[in-house]
Amino acid sequence: MNILIIGGGGFLGQKLARRLIARGELRGRQIAGLTLADIAAPAPLDAPFDIACTACDITDRAAMDALLAPGFDAVFLLAAVVSSHAEAEFEDGMNVNLHGVLNVLESLRLQGRAPVLVFTSSLAVFGGEVPDPIRDWTIPNPQTSYGTQKAIGELLVNDYSRRGFVDGRTLRLPTISVRPGRPNRAASSFMSSIIREPLNGEEAVCPVDPEFPHYYLSPRLCVENLIRGAEIEAADLGQSRTMTMPGRTLTIRQMIEAMTAVAGPEPAKLIRFEDDPAIRDIVSGWRFDYDPAKALALGLEADASFEENVRYYLEDDRPT
Amino acid sequence: MNILIIGGGGFLGQKLARRLIARGELRGRQIAGLTLADIAAPAPLDAPFDIACTACDITDRAAMDALLAPGFDAVFLLAAVVSSHAEAEFEDGMNVNLHGVLNVLESLRLQGRAPVLVFTSSLAVFGGEVPDPIRDWTIPNPQTSYGTQKAIGELLVNDYSRRGFVDGRTLRLPTISVRPGRPNRAASSFMSSIIREPLNGEEAVCPVDPEFPHYYLSPRLCVENLIRGAEIEAADLGQSRTMTMPGRTLTIRQMIEAMTAVAGPEPAKLIRFEDDPAIRDIVSGWRFDYDPAKALALGLEADASFEENVRYYLEDDRPT
Ligand SMILES: NC(=O)c1ccc[n+]([C@@H]2O[C@H](COP(=O)([O-])OP(=O)(O)OC[C@H]3O[C@@H](n4cnc5c(N)ncnc54)[C@H](O)[C@@H]3O)[C@@H](O)[C@H]2O)c1
Ligand SMILES: NC(=O)c1ccc[n+]([C@@H]2O[C@H](COP(=O)([O-])OP(=O)(O)OC[C@H]3O[C@@H](n4cnc5c(N)ncnc54)[C@H](O)[C@@H]3O)[C@@H](O)[C@H]2O)c1
Repeated sequence: MNILIIGGGGFLGQKLARRLIARGELRGRQIAGLTLADIAAPAPLDAPFDIACTACDITDRAAMDALLAPGFDAVFLLAAVVSSHAEAEFEDGMNVNLHGVLNVLESLRLQGRAPVLVFTSSLAVFGGEVPDPIRDWTIPNPQTSYGTQKAIGELLVNDYSRRGFVDGRTLRLPTISVRPGRPNRAASSFMSSIIREPLNGEEAVCPVDPEFPHYYLSPRLCVENLIRGAEIEAADLGQSRTMTMPGRTLTIRQMIEAMTAVAGPEPAKLIRFEDDPAIRDIVSGWRFDYDPAKALALGLEADASFEENVRYYLEDDRPT
Repeated sequence: MNILIIGGGGFLGQKLARRLIARGELRGRQIAGLTLADIAAPAPLDAPFDIACTACDITDRAAMDALLAPGFDAVFLLAAVVSSHAEAEFEDGMNVNLHGVLNVLESLRLQGRAPVLVFTSSLAVFGGEVPDPIRDWTIPNPQTSYGTQKAIGELLVNDYSRRGFVDGRTLRLPTISVRPGRPNRAASSFMSSIIREPLNGEEAVCPVDPEFPHYYLSPRLCVENLIRGAEIEAADLGQSRTMTMPGRTLTIRQMIEAMTAVAGPEPAKLIRFEDDPAIRDIVSGWRFDYDPAKALALGLEADASFEENVRYYLEDDRPT
């Protein structure tokens, strides 16, 4: 089993690589090699099998042909420019999120090996005038260029799979929380930082009110679901390779209560509520009511409660 | 008002051109010029304003820039390779139906004039595990490469419109019947020929049983709806530029009864029912239960009854 992670230097790519190393197998076969590719070569990891870390740009078709030439049994396609970037720089988003994905698919099509391909889409594909709850058969009606590009990727992965060019699976990721690291300029940044910073003994600002609901998943279960996505039998996927990855709808208040249940009353005291109308306007347009029936039926899972998300952060990511 | 029809040499492009010439105006403004572009230059038409007929390939980005350079107020993007072609020749379909559409959109984006753009999608975007009736918020889950490419075009037109690069409207066309001309190799060919040939005094074979249901629209109302689509105010389109063009669900029996009501009992005697399992297998996977609520609310229309479709064929298209 030879595995490639494109976008292997990113947040989820790194976690996925470590988890695959710990597991040692995928789809019932021992892992013989793992290649991590990203725009800059990811730092090497220790593993009991071959690890290669390589720099390569998915917008460069020839580079993709070279990267894929050895032939892989499973490819995780995580490389993307994120939502705010794709909205601010239209051409970057189109080049990476649309043409980059097409480069990978075309390269795989012409190679004719039809590997398992796990593509990460986003709940950002949903929006506009569609009824709640959002089901597996709700139209992607994205209100961002990022969501549009991801929705196009979903369609391409479906068609390339239907034709037998790849054996694709597309997972629409919920917002990941608790995400490690520092706050960034994404509108969703507070959805991790209001938990992460207090657990690290630092102050955090919450720009929305405590009843604001949103749909979350921990990084640990996200990686687990990416692996399960790779392991689903093609025959069980039916007439669409796309599914919403399960998450939980939670209010800010519920998230804070879970933090308090796990870590005691002190962290919550470090959160300051300070309305930010600009952020509130963006995130109040986001959907939070999902029915991920297909993924649940195929064995993917949400966190049992947000207490798990808090525990996973403490176990996996809190700086020591 | 300067208008461009890309695919202007095709079946609907030609009918649309004639209808625009007869109308003389669009969006309340007199038509000053009409350009018909197609892979081979369409034959010139008589008109009380400037008509240009030009050969040009939408897969050629430089040719698109040159075609669009004069600047148009409204562009109808009809050029496409059809379903069976896109399924048999994957690269042709991708080149014309995906990259060709992207060429037009990119050329318009960089021009910065944001014309009205009417894009023709198809009910072939629907399929697979989605519940009936198919609504405006049902996921496009195409089971053909043609449907996939059209669904991608819908997403692109939405995003280019949201960003103000074009003022787009996408109409998903039902199966057009009665289509003039000769039978072709499309699986849907019989849906016109069982009416057209008998009205012309010729025999026709129906490969499915009389209770087979499907969703139809006449060419005349299709063209009318394309024009209404161009005339909708952008503000009335809401958060999606895509809608299902209204049609009627009819069985073969109802179509034949309508023909008899209009043209007497003789034509129906020319239809021979002869099961064709290959065709039946394809068309029985097609959906026929649609709720085109958005388009109806915006003033688009279906034929009042299939008797209209029969009359329009006799008035507009029967060879004399
Ligand atoms: N984290 C989330 O909350 C979330 C939510 C929804 C979807 N996703 C999706 O999951 C995937 C992984 O997300 P992440 O959180 O790890 O993001 P990330 O930004 O940490 O990782 C993405 C990686 O892609 C790489 N990349 C960007 N352009 C590239 C190019 N041209 N060539 C090669 N590599 C390139 C980046 O360098 C980065 O390392 C992405 O596809 C993202 O859209 C993430
Ligand atoms: N007629 C129907 O039942 C139906 C149903 C659903 C959707 N549609 C869509 O409506 C539109 C018009 O359909 P039609 O029935 O008139 O089809 P058509 O085949 O008669 O017309 C399409 C035209 O596009 C032109 N074309 C193809 N490739 C081209 C290229 N590379 N550059 C320039 N022109 C090119 C063809 O030469 C042709 O004249 C198409 O987009 C079609 O997909 C039609």
